[in-house]
Amino acid sequence: MLVIGERINGMFAEVRRAIEARDAETIQRIARMQQDAGANVLDVCVGTAAGDAGDSMEWLVSVIRRTTDLPLCIDTTRPEVMERGVRAAGPGTIINSAKADPAVLSMYLQMAQRFSARLIVLCIGAGGIPRDAAGRVELAALAVTAALEAGFSARNLFVDPVVMPVNVAQQQLPDILDTIRQVRLIADPAPQTVIGLSNVSQGTKQRSLLNRVFLALALEAGLDAAIMDATDRELMHTAAAAEVLLNRRLYCEGFLDASRHLR
Amino acid sequence: MLVIGERINGMFAEVRRAIEARDAETIQRIARMQQDAGANVLDVCVGTAAGDAGDSMEWLVSVIRRTTDLPLCIDTTRPEVMERGVRAAGPGTIINSAKADPAVLSMYLQMAQRFSARLIVLCIGAGGIPRDAAGRVELAALAVTAALEAGFSARNLFVDPVVMPVNVAQQQLPDILDTIRQVRLIADPAPQTVIGLSNVSQGTKQRSLLNRVFLALALEAGLDAAIMDATDRELMHTAAAAEVLLNRRLYCEGFLDASRHLR
Repeated sequence: MLVIGERINGMFAEVRRAIEARDAETIQRIARMQQDAGANVLDVCVGTAAGDAGDSMEWLVSVIRRTTDLPLCIDTTRPEVMERGVRAAGPGTIINSAKADPAVLSMYLQMAQRFSARLIVLCIGAGGIPRDAAGRVELAALAVTAALEAGFSARNLFVDPVVMPVNVAQQQLPDILDTIRQVRLIADPAPQTVIGLSNVSQGTKQRSLLNRVFLALALEAGLDAAIMDATDRELMHTAAAAEVLLNRRLYCEGFLDASRHLR
Repeated sequence: MLVIGERINGMFAEVRRAIEARDAETIQRIARMQQDAGANVLDVCVGTAAGDAGDSMEWLVSVIRRTTDLPLCIDTTRPEVMERGVRAAGPGTIINSAKADPAVLSMYLQMAQRFSARLIVLCIGAGGIPRDAAGRVELAALAVTAALEAGFSARNLFVDPVVMPVNVAQQQLPDILDTIRQVRLIADPAPQTVIGLSNVSQGTKQRSLLNRVFLALALEAGLDAAIMDATDRELMHTAAAAEVLLNRRLYCEGFLDASRHLR
């Protein structure tokens, strides 16, 4: 699976302070820490830091680029901030994210093509987040159709079913797993699937446990990628064990150590 | 899910010594320890202890019966030992196990009916353990047919797909998950499914991790019961979290504590 490290996000106080103080060392340390832990991609989100979001995003990307070659996942809801981040990050970047709304989608597909980027599409339409799997899959199909019509490969499209916290919408979690399962059948080649894993445990007292178990369930459903805490060792071990038990990665006695170097 | 505690088994040195020395206190302590940890049923296996296996089984059952009312799961391959155990344990006992061979099955179905017991049938036929899901499901269907013809409710039948160690037959694990998924479709009401969970990690260095993750995957596939180490706290927490995330148990902030009392 593709592990997208979630830690460079202005929602975390340490990162927010580092952005505001233009403290490159802290950002680079968090970037390397995630890479060493096995992250394949680093999410980059300015969050609630003060100052110009576009400037902050460009600064974050350039600072990270000086310490690692990992692909970045530019995480913002503002197109102008996105463009500055994607331009600075270079080819192979992931745009995070577009809603499954035709006009929005069209703009982001063009941006992705212009910068040779991949694109995450959220299962959020004009009517918000559908409550069931059918509604989510319908939005995913709309996104895939738009991508194919634009000449954008489905393999470079990631569908995000939008994970809800268990303490808010527990009954939707099986629908999210079903969405992951069904999205793989929409087209051939199929789009990939990605989740913001930590959302599932937002506001609970058992964050790591719930993240771990939901990741295992999502991997069984066929998940390709997750934005997650790569520095949670137990979580990374769970991912490796699930891949071994689902026969997607060869078992060997040292598979936990091997996994870090193989990613 | 039904948690069948695995710890009263002569394969464990402490239990073997207790059986040989007729040390009731040790057995009763292990029984209570599993009950306190949340086991709903206790597996009872004489294993490799010296002396008459029938006498040892009857002694084990009577000793456990004096300390807990939990249903027991009598675990032996010898019919005469099984009968003594089941008779001593009383109604609601689980017979563990019969192979999916018509003659063997018929004998054990009669025994189950005579003692108002439930029955575990292994997906092992005349040709051994099938390698794929289709072969396992075929044996499960044979067992369900035999049960229904004998007037034995499918709900009292547990199908065990036979879990193989990941270091021996990794490629069969997805088939085992598929078997669990498909067995639920054989009849209405469907037979239940059970696995010997610890088998998956036999001979590996990551036993608890692999047990935890495989349990989560099996629960998503629809597993009803597992013979497992109920005293592994992280494993029990994984089961509770998976049931919550699959929307089979209501989330509340204290769901980990609640789970122990609700079982």
